[in-house]
Amino acid sequence: MRATIPELAAAIRARDRFLLLTHKRPDGDTLGSAAALCRGLRALGKQAALLWNPEAIARYDPFLEGLTTPEIPADAVLFAVDLAAETLLPANAEALAGRIDLCIDHHGSNRDYAALSVIAPEHAACGETDMALLEELGLPVTPPMATALYLALSTDTGCFRFSNTSPNTLRRAAELMEAGADVYAINRQFFSIKSLSRLRLESLLGERLETLADGRVAVCVLTPQLMERCGAGEDDIEDLANFPRQIEGVVVAVYIRVLSDGTSKISLRTDPGVDASAICAHLGGGGHPAAAGASIAAPWEVARMRILDAIEQETGLPCQPTRLI
Amino acid sequence: MRATIPELAAAIRARDRFLLLTHKRPDGDTLGSAAALCRGLRALGKQAALLWNPEAIARYDPFLEGLTTPEIPADAVLFAVDLAAETLLPANAEALAGRIDLCIDHHGSNRDYAALSVIAPEHAACGETDMALLEELGLPVTPPMATALYLALSTDTGCFRFSNTSPNTLRRAAELMEAGADVYAINRQFFSIKSLSRLRLESLLGERLETLADGRVAVCVLTPQLMERCGAGEDDIEDLANFPRQIEGVVVAVYIRVLSDGTSKISLRTDPGVDASAICAHLGGGGHPAAAGASIAAPWEVARMRILDAIEQETGLPCQPTRLI
Repeated sequence: MRATIPELAAAIRARDRFLLLTHKRPDGDTLGSAAALCRGLRALGKQAALLWNPEAIARYDPFLEGLTTPEIPADAVLFAVDLAAETLLPANAEALAGRIDLCIDHHGSNRDYAALSVIAPEHAACGETDMALLEELGLPVTPPMATALYLALSTDTGCFRFSNTSPNTLRRAAELMEAGADVYAINRQFFSIKSLSRLRLESLLGERLETLADGRVAVCVLTPQLMERCGAGEDDIEDLANFPRQIEGVVVAVYIRVLSDGTSKISLRTDPGVDASAICAHLGGGGHPAAAGASIAAPWEVARMRILDAIEQETGLPCQPTRLI
Repeated sequence: MRATIPELAAAIRARDRFLLLTHKRPDGDTLGSAAALCRGLRALGKQAALLWNPEAIARYDPFLEGLTTPEIPADAVLFAVDLAAETLLPANAEALAGRIDLCIDHHGSNRDYAALSVIAPEHAACGETDMALLEELGLPVTPPMATALYLALSTDTGCFRFSNTSPNTLRRAAELMEAGADVYAINRQFFSIKSLSRLRLESLLGERLETLADGRVAVCVLTPQLMERCGAGEDDIEDLANFPRQIEGVVVAVYIRVLSDGTSKISLRTDPGVDASAICAHLGGGGHPAAAGASIAAPWEVARMRILDAIEQETGLPCQPTRLI
């Protein structure tokens, strides 16, 4: 059921033990928002922990220290944070679908799977919604909470670059700086530096990047061989699907990742006016208008040909001339 | 003479004709702040223009449209914007040194060269100081002014990533969004996309990048041949000196640009604790603690050897093992 912030706050006050749930392939928003909320609940005198997320990569560890548990206590209130749908629960929480008590989220697509949900699609990050809840609970934002919330706000907006950034996002970030968030360390780690392996990998991708249709379509292919050559692991390839999207003039960016089992995983990123989800539907995939994907059990050369065909059919952009196979 | 914002506002009200001066190798802050101020002065009923800056690159053209003049009217009040020192005047304004009437700036190193100066080192961008002045003048920020000011704030802070960003910077940015700044276009153009030539160039630099001292020192070399191979011009290499600085673990980043006359121009970027300016002093150069430079009339192989020697002498980091020559 949809609830207001005061209603959610009242529900929190009435209970004693909370287990916070984050989403699959967790990002800075789900982890940072849950970490801040966990600290807030403890400050209220509640027992609270984050259910350990098996997919969280190492760079988030410092934000979660002392907050996670591998166990699901039978009497805990299940509280989902930034979880748009129960299908996005990580493997160790799948069994909790249908039993979630509380939810705080900012995804407009959230279908109220929880008994009580606050959903604020006007917020760029769930961290903004968290801040409204913490205010309602009368909880001051401590420096560790501020750092976790700044992680949430900054990572969900590309450090305030993306179009979801609002004046409220910026003002909340200003408050977090004043509350003692370790802003510079986050900005440097998440938005300024990259591992040498990542840099080498981007260099190889950039050199091999193919452009078609007068530079309006770009194609990048990541193979296990390229990763090995650069000593790159999963931590080094986060968000790499956006790599071909950064080129001036590109309206359809194709990123193909060859998995170790030989499957080709296609990620498509498009400008407004080109429906990525409609293109991927040709290959049995789907997603959003600006970001969609499809998986093909075939070598990348075949996946490349099929996605280029789909782009040409859907957009009319000529993708044939430099065909490799 | 150092002045307050109300004193500067009073001086502006008393005069009728203004010529705004920007600095050498102009960036988004000097151009954006001057453009917004020019529009503000015109809204006050004054005659105002920016002196055309011969070094302004094409990406700034849209922000300056209708605001620049190549001429220096004899009776104009000379008003410097974001100009830390008169030695930083571009070639067509060098003769104005010693004659500057007004100055608005945020560089702590500004030595009050103008008859009346407002200098606000607490501001990350001169655009913030501009906003305080516009408020004092009772001028509402129109959408074109907001766009120019957002250009100033965002480019001087790396889109709110750099350590100079303050809560005031973020709150001012929020105001500019509300005043109708074209935030998303600036964010995309300046912080999200790059030309294909730039991407190819970064790929070649990344592949050739050398690391020493267990990854704490990185060296990059840009030659005219590499630029030609990628079809890259001056617009494509803005800020490229920061390229080797982005690697995790690097504390001393060396970037050598070989100019068409064969000179090697060294740019050094360092972490706190390593004095870039002291290192460059070994080669007759200088600068700031975190960013310094030197020019050597020798091939890059020689420049590389000399700067590595200087780094080793100054920091003790072992830069010899992989010596190329």
